[in-house]
Amino acid sequence: MTESKTRYGFTGSFKTKPGKGADMIAILLQAAESVRTAKGCHLYIISQDEKDPDNIHVFETWDSREDHDNSLKMEDSKGLIAQAMPLLEGKPQGMSLKVFGGAGLK
Amino acid sequence: MTESKTRYGFTGSFKTKPGKGADMIAILLQAAESVRTAKGCHLYIISQDEKDPDNIHVFETWDSREDHDNSLKMEDSKGLIAQAMPLLEGKPQGMSLKVFGGAGLK
Repeated sequence: MTESKTRYGFTGSFKTKPGKGADMIAILLQAAESVRTAKGCHLYIISQDEKDPDNIHVFETWDSREDHDNSLKMEDSKGLIAQAMPLLEGKPQGMSLKVFGGAGLK
Repeated sequence: MTESKTRYGFTGSFKTKPGKGADMIAILLQAAESVRTAKGCHLYIISQDEKDPDNIHVFETWDSREDHDNSLKMEDSKGLIAQAMPLLEGKPQGMSLKVFGGAGLK
């Protein structure tokens, strides 16, 4: 996949208040269900830092940044973001990516 | 997916020497091809930091850490690692993950 044909990706960590990691995972797994059929969504993977149960990781791949941004405007997304915000301890850390491909990405 | 049924994941960044990002991507895409059929491999995604072409990101998901570690012993992997090491600028940054699931993961 040449640079011109890359997809939009995001990798980010959400540090929650103590003991709230499992709640955040549940919310983000609901978000994953709602974006599963969103236009341009390929991957929306929810994980937990092996060393810190309150450090939650999201890896996303979309056809474009625009598709990603549009998903945040979906009614479900707004509700879930409202549930997630109070659980956060500080600002999420993340990096926007150019996804070149690999194994497991259709 | 309850905690007992999580998979092994890894998210990591490889900072290369100046101008070597594209070479690293090419090597890691070859690695992705070789692990595509490796036991327990679900995702091996190669990306580039949008803000820094020499900061290369890998996101992996495996059935188990053991499957992941075994893939590093494959002949192809050893050769590719040997090609990649000289391109690195400092130690790769990474985090092992418990992958709970999400969209795009079979």
